[in-house]
Amino acid sequence: MHLAHARTLDSSDPLAHYRARFEIPDPALIYLDGNSLGRMPKAVRPLMDELLTMWSDRLIRGWNEGWWMDLQTRIGDKIGRLVGAEAGEILIADSTSINLYKLAAAALRLRPGRTKIITDDLNFPSDVYILESVCRLVGKEYELVVVPSDGLNGPLVGLEAALDERTALLSLSHTVFKSGWTYPPAEVTAMAHRAGALTLWDLSHSAGSVPVGLAAAGADLAVGCTYKYLNGGPGAPAFLYIRKDLQSEIRNPIAGWIGQDRPFEFGLEYKPAPGLRRMLTGTPTILSIAAIEPGVDLLLEAGLDALRAKSLAQTDFLIELWESELAPRGYTLKSPRDHAVRGSHVSLAHPEAWGIDQALIEELGVIPDFRAPDNLRLGIAAIYTSYEEIYRAVEGMARIVDEKMYEPYRRGSLEVT
Amino acid sequence: MHLAHARTLDSSDPLAHYRARFEIPDPALIYLDGNSLGRMPKAVRPLMDELLTMWSDRLIRGWNEGWWMDLQTRIGDKIGRLVGAEAGEILIADSTSINLYKLAAAALRLRPGRTKIITDDLNFPSDVYILESVCRLVGKEYELVVVPSDGLNGPLVGLEAALDERTALLSLSHTVFKSGWTYPPAEVTAMAHRAGALTLWDLSHSAGSVPVGLAAAGADLAVGCTYKYLNGGPGAPAFLYIRKDLQSEIRNPIAGWIGQDRPFEFGLEYKPAPGLRRMLTGTPTILSIAAIEPGVDLLLEAGLDALRAKSLAQTDFLIELWESELAPRGYTLKSPRDHAVRGSHVSLAHPEAWGIDQALIEELGVIPDFRAPDNLRLGIAAIYTSYEEIYRAVEGMARIVDEKMYEPYRRGSLEVT
Repeated sequence: MHLAHARTLDSSDPLAHYRARFEIPDPALIYLDGNSLGRMPKAVRPLMDELLTMWSDRLIRGWNEGWWMDLQTRIGDKIGRLVGAEAGEILIADSTSINLYKLAAAALRLRPGRTKIITDDLNFPSDVYILESVCRLVGKEYELVVVPSDGLNGPLVGLEAALDERTALLSLSHTVFKSGWTYPPAEVTAMAHRAGALTLWDLSHSAGSVPVGLAAAGADLAVGCTYKYLNGGPGAPAFLYIRKDLQSEIRNPIAGWIGQDRPFEFGLEYKPAPGLRRMLTGTPTILSIAAIEPGVDLLLEAGLDALRAKSLAQTDFLIELWESELAPRGYTLKSPRDHAVRGSHVSLAHPEAWGIDQALIEELGVIPDFRAPDNLRLGIAAIYTSYEEIYRAVEGMARIVDEKMYEPYRRGSLEVT
Repeated sequence: MHLAHARTLDSSDPLAHYRARFEIPDPALIYLDGNSLGRMPKAVRPLMDELLTMWSDRLIRGWNEGWWMDLQTRIGDKIGRLVGAEAGEILIADSTSINLYKLAAAALRLRPGRTKIITDDLNFPSDVYILESVCRLVGKEYELVVVPSDGLNGPLVGLEAALDERTALLSLSHTVFKSGWTYPPAEVTAMAHRAGALTLWDLSHSAGSVPVGLAAAGADLAVGCTYKYLNGGPGAPAFLYIRKDLQSEIRNPIAGWIGQDRPFEFGLEYKPAPGLRRMLTGTPTILSIAAIEPGVDLLLEAGLDALRAKSLAQTDFLIELWESELAPRGYTLKSPRDHAVRGSHVSLAHPEAWGIDQALIEELGVIPDFRAPDNLRLGIAAIYTSYEEIYRAVEGMARIVDEKMYEPYRRGSLEVT
């Protein structure tokens, strides 16, 4: 009955044809980890071939012929359309962690005299390490406050209480990596601004799947990764966002030649480029950056509203199936039911989660994501995930418990997954 | 006569057959800018195709199957063999500028109480910006001293005079980007160590073309780029080196998840990975990193001694041709004649250098590199440059002056080249 329903939903899905735009060598594989590494758009392969020909044929001239030098801002502008930023507010560079470091350090300089950075314990651990790194490097008086979460939910009350006249920056994941709980950016930004603090968002788990509305929220700064819902490829470079009116006052804390006003003059005196380009540091990794564009183009073609509508319908479907099939088998829902604060993945906890994860991959060809201690994350990439896949994954999760298929995969201690 | 001589040299060149291992779509193009962007090894294209299949087929499993996760250290070890480092002392990450920032900031923590960084004005401008950035971020008391150069040569006397008990770090380009002058790393390192300072080398213009001998020199820290003589592709990620016995005391100033001891446990407490991996920050850019390996493999196969011998013979040949053909036409040699301090490129100055550079590219299909105000850099990549190409380039440079072919290309002011 559920299967028939899934098939009906697939047959009336207006986005279903986008699946054919991705290279899917094993159609039987059920892939629910597009929130860790998205599938490869078919357009990447010919693009990469063309790019290698540019390298071998144009050689150094490739830098002067525009296409390479414009990649960071051109793709940045396209991502801007997915997260509600204006043209010239986003560019591609480095990794999410490096970008977070640069923007956090720059933010402290924009709020002299303020020595506190605030985050929460739902944030991606790397973000916490980075914010600690910034505090440690800029001076002993700087402090990172990690506000404890309220169950699965972002600690809005605790954050508001922590914000004070010493706070320079509030940095949060928009959609948090374990539960998928999603902050309301406008509300949080207003809260930070009332205290005179800036906001710095990590959009890694929302860009391309959840509306962000950076401009509408009045957000100050943001970073995000491109290899999850944006389908940019393994370790694809990240993006950074700076609200337009902050760009002229911001200073790059790692000033490098590509962010210089006239990089090819090679003068010893650093003069920042106008606008966002001043945030660049080293030479851009052209092959990895170029591979990001086809995935972003597909999402723009499909439209974020349609993608979000399908993602909510699919996570609803998954939560319904959890309720009828998985809750009785010991799975607990660890993601919000409320659409307003839901991301595009659903976390289900189970005492045997590690063994279930391994059995799903090895025995049933279903790939979820395991997050310690007991979370199975099921990522919905609306651009290519089908309802039938969601049904099959749930069917597998039920079967593994019924047949105790997790037993051979149990581990004494957690290791790298 | 010179042409016949060039052809004789080519026919007895033991490395000549390596040229066929590179994709050269236009064999008539004379490319002397491999010190800016090296040619593409043929092996890159099938490798990239295989890698895209890994992405589409293995998806997230690619991270657990080793090949991706090992890239940074595996290629790092190979580069180590080209620059005289031991296995486990080099890894690929980020850009040269980011790596320089991380190592310089880390070095300051290794020398507490010392507040001076020393460099020279021959250094690549981005290195100077980065060192200034580090000083600015860590605190007001930190100071960057830029020792003025002694003509084309590194200011050894001035550097020694500047080194004192307040100096934490001496950071220099091993081979400098304009003249190609090359520091003796052992001598300079000993000088720095006598003052209790650490050394941080930028090997961008020497790695893969000039012997460095990091271990033999007792060098402390180094960075370098991979898209020049290593032929890693446009904007290919950079490498960093930390001498083994420093690795356990060094702390990553931009601590991120990939440098964590157990990155896939996602704990909020940062514990650095043992050894060099602690210097990693964000997710590695797999496509761009993987493309580095074929070029490095070719250099290892050819052997650095043979490459250096050919590079010296070719720069000798070029300097001889300059003397007989170009000096009478107003070109000045701006690179050292002494083998001991010569890199793998030769700079020739001319009052009409900009117009000559443009005419060479547009009219004669010869690609050198222009560096303000009046330098033409001719880069010798011994792995694929032929003697005949060098002869043809010189012939073109003579003809352009004789026929005043630079005139239509003159410019009132320098712009981005």
